[in-house]
Amino acid sequence: MPVYRAKYLMEITEKIFRAAGATDHEAECVAKHLVKSNLVGHDSHGVLVIPEYVDMIEKGLIRPGAKAEIVKETSTMALIEGNWGFGQVVAEEAMELAIQKAKNMNVSFVGIRHVYHIGRLGYYSTMAAERDMIGAVICNTGPIMAPHGGKSRILGSNPMSVAFPSLKGIFLLDFATSVAAGNKILLAYNRGEKIPYGWMLDKDGKPTRDPASIFHDGVLLPFGGHKGYALAILIDVLGGALTGHGCTSSPEFKHGNGTLMAVIDIKSFISIQEFKEKVNTLFKTIKESPKAPGYREILIPGEPEQRVENKRLKEGIWISEEAWKSIKAVARKLGVNI
Amino acid sequence: MPVYRAKYLMEITEKIFRAAGATDHEAECVAKHLVKSNLVGHDSHGVLVIPEYVDMIEKGLIRPGAKAEIVKETSTMALIEGNWGFGQVVAEEAMELAIQKAKNMNVSFVGIRHVYHIGRLGYYSTMAAERDMIGAVICNTGPIMAPHGGKSRILGSNPMSVAFPSLKGIFLLDFATSVAAGNKILLAYNRGEKIPYGWMLDKDGKPTRDPASIFHDGVLLPFGGHKGYALAILIDVLGGALTGHGCTSSPEFKHGNGTLMAVIDIKSFISIQEFKEKVNTLFKTIKESPKAPGYREILIPGEPEQRVENKRLKEGIWISEEAWKSIKAVARKLGVNI
Repeated sequence: MPVYRAKYLMEITEKIFRAAGATDHEAECVAKHLVKSNLVGHDSHGVLVIPEYVDMIEKGLIRPGAKAEIVKETSTMALIEGNWGFGQVVAEEAMELAIQKAKNMNVSFVGIRHVYHIGRLGYYSTMAAERDMIGAVICNTGPIMAPHGGKSRILGSNPMSVAFPSLKGIFLLDFATSVAAGNKILLAYNRGEKIPYGWMLDKDGKPTRDPASIFHDGVLLPFGGHKGYALAILIDVLGGALTGHGCTSSPEFKHGNGTLMAVIDIKSFISIQEFKEKVNTLFKTIKESPKAPGYREILIPGEPEQRVENKRLKEGIWISEEAWKSIKAVARKLGVNI
Repeated sequence: MPVYRAKYLMEITEKIFRAAGATDHEAECVAKHLVKSNLVGHDSHGVLVIPEYVDMIEKGLIRPGAKAEIVKETSTMALIEGNWGFGQVVAEEAMELAIQKAKNMNVSFVGIRHVYHIGRLGYYSTMAAERDMIGAVICNTGPIMAPHGGKSRILGSNPMSVAFPSLKGIFLLDFATSVAAGNKILLAYNRGEKIPYGWMLDKDGKPTRDPASIFHDGVLLPFGGHKGYALAILIDVLGGALTGHGCTSSPEFKHGNGTLMAVIDIKSFISIQEFKEKVNTLFKTIKESPKAPGYREILIPGEPEQRVENKRLKEGIWISEEAWKSIKAVARKLGVNI
């Protein structure tokens, strides 16, 4: 399997997006987000998506050079019309705005409508955590998940992420509200493996272990049954209804991610030092507590990503043969030498 | 089993708390919260807790007449020192304050430290939804849940609730981050039933179906594995570290609920009418979608509570013989005739 340095992947990703019509700033921003996803181990949001994004540009569903506009704004909130620009570019600006507002006003909410895929949510929540704030991001997605008790694709896999700082590294909650992300099912399919019961229903609503169901109107299931289902509805409403992007199953939903971000400035409640010390004590207590049979270690959310990043920065990022072939084909078509 | 009207339960609950030293306002407020929990079917947070609360008053852990103080405040946030007053009284004031701040500033956060049990979270989030806002509440609780991969009582069952309005009724997400609430395990124990695998580990960290494990250092498990675990840590940090109440396993945590509330004024983003119409379309799509085998209906979070309330307002609330006996014993001791 091909292994590449992050720096090289950044360079070629930038080149491809520039050749596809992106501005320098857009190409650099999207490349940074995709390669960061690979670095932390979320390959489904990494350079793998280049061919899809280029295709979306060609179809006019991503509009390079689009200017996002603030359509509503107060000292504590903003609503951004993305004009179908690159999701990562608009979402990074939105989080920057949310951080500035929280710095001035202690707390803030910023919504985004009409952007394409914003990528890995953990990137944005971490931006706030790096500034000693608590950052939260949710967004809705295309229809792929059944309501609890249903069997149709009504909801997205609607992910959420929250991050905050500690004395050692950043706590990072970052997950989909489905039991398993769609790409895990594709991975099982590509490897010829079965999936566990509980991940999906087939088109008739029956539990299935066959990952190929994803190509035949199978549906993902919410994690934790009615609890993940309730979270997925909440995210659809916050990301889709409140922003005007559209709820996943509504006619006004085109594609992309209706997004809401929130930031709390920690020091408005408690000193940063005190907060971080309390968090560290909690993490120490958790990590030092007795393990259940079969576990050698208890991890804090965010630790797995940090470890993969340290490893991949040293050893490089391996890309599947298939993904690399598609990326090369797109590059060739655009006249980019990689 | 004894069946009583909500009005009667309100009256006797008020009398008991007044006799135990509560002010008229406190007795009325706590009675309203407990009986509302019974009405919507959350009996674990209903009049069942009267003997425990009276015991806590006698031990000085609930302090009738305590005045809550705002220790930090800006236009968008507040931190409330509860001085160990009744949780319901302080939390209702806190949500009222959060609603006022959101009305003025679009969004708000209010934290509470040092209060006893605040009861059913859905009460507070619903207060915001009834005012056409989005209300969210989280709190930490006493240690009862293991971290993902652990087997000790490090985390609380840390619940969360979010509510928002629709054209027909209120969406209400209201659940613990454990697979099953502690009271469901007690219920199984009282009925001599087994619990399903996945709810608990015994003291050695082995999966158990014996609800009696709860009395022998067994632990609850987070819902959805690492996802519920991440949510439980987040809630411990927001409710315990940010407010100064203390994280569940820290020496500064005494008892009660470290709490954080958030309110968003919907109309700062979109007109209430438009929001409610979008939400209604979503709910209609969900409810009318095909059912999975074994399901006759798909419910929206909040519908089960609404249905139980309609039924119990008509038919009365039944209280278990055992609970009623304990309530009568407490009443007799305090010289209250019920």
